[in-house]
Amino acid sequence: MNYPSKILEKAVDEMSNLPGIGRRTALRLVLHMLNRPASQTENLAESLEKLVHEIRFCEKCHMISDNQLCHICSGNHRDVSVICVVEDVRDVMAIENTGQYRGLYHVLGGRISPIDGIGPGQLNIASLSERARNEEVNEIIFTLSSTMEGDTTSFYLYRILSESRLKVSVIARGIGVGDELEYADEATLIRSIQNRIPYATSTLKDK
Amino acid sequence: MNYPSKILEKAVDEMSNLPGIGRRTALRLVLHMLNRPASQTENLAESLEKLVHEIRFCEKCHMISDNQLCHICSGNHRDVSVICVVEDVRDVMAIENTGQYRGLYHVLGGRISPIDGIGPGQLNIASLSERARNEEVNEIIFTLSSTMEGDTTSFYLYRILSESRLKVSVIARGIGVGDELEYADEATLIRSIQNRIPYATSTLKDK
Repeated sequence: MNYPSKILEKAVDEMSNLPGIGRRTALRLVLHMLNRPASQTENLAESLEKLVHEIRFCEKCHMISDNQLCHICSGNHRDVSVICVVEDVRDVMAIENTGQYRGLYHVLGGRISPIDGIGPGQLNIASLSERARNEEVNEIIFTLSSTMEGDTTSFYLYRILSESRLKVSVIARGIGVGDELEYADEATLIRSIQNRIPYATSTLKDK
Repeated sequence: MNYPSKILEKAVDEMSNLPGIGRRTALRLVLHMLNRPASQTENLAESLEKLVHEIRFCEKCHMISDNQLCHICSGNHRDVSVICVVEDVRDVMAIENTGQYRGLYHVLGGRISPIDGIGPGQLNIASLSERARNEEVNEIIFTLSSTMEGDTTSFYLYRILSESRLKVSVIARGIGVGDELEYADEATLIRSIQNRIPYATSTLKDK
């Protein structure tokens, strides 16, 4: 595709560097920006500059934060004895959205994936070991994805943490609440049977 | 959704203002920007700033251009007797990509659509009338979309131009080259029969 302007082409190039945005979509977005008030695109550009220069990560749990400590780690009403280990920021946001979990988090920043060149050294694992040594902590919950890489990461962490006095648990995998059995995949269905729990404990508990 | 940071939230807000990008996608894109070198996002922000401030439109045909006249209007090898009227910049790029059309363009900047509050006054129609008065011009080709709004716009333009000595034509609608008849919609199929042309003229002519 030949572009009528270098400036246009550069903007399309940069937009199409984003994941899931091809050159056609990028062109559509860029032309849209030319059809709206310039101030809106200025705001966008400014907010992106600010994003990459001013955003901080919580020193304790590595969550995105505007301050040294995130609002969860610095909150007064959280249960500091439980740490939920997640892969990334979106996982924290998803769990927080339930409004039911009262413990803390630890954002690993990814999962061990040798094929992508990500080893334990690139993840926030050292700081997790350190936090686990704190006497206040009683339980670590693994909330990683159930992929090869997620399972590898969980196992790696388990090996590090199993020597401690901590309770190490993992979230339940099973049929989603409200889902139909017949549409569940086989792996999920059999896992939900293998990991069945006493009926009396099956109602939602406040953590 | 609660965001852990105002800066993050603002960036997601601005990204999700773009068409076809919801808040979830915006969050994914913004987090991707935090995981790549900051310089890449700086380049993006800079190119968008430049886009809205430095891009120009051709004074003659209203095509995006880095100069006062676009490379088509200022080209030496174009047929100045034909003007192809299109809705937007992407249409010009699509036609230029064929590498076969040698005439000029006129970008209307949209189509007449009372429901969206777009009347003839918002489009580049006055400048088209003026160009049509130039003695060099012999033919105007309507290349607008075959929607209610596109047809309305074509008809409006036809009324303006029909009093002149100009030949006013419209692109052929029919079965796409290489398409199977059985998959064509009925409107297209019957149009391709109604607007049949002598077989002897049916091979590709160089314009």
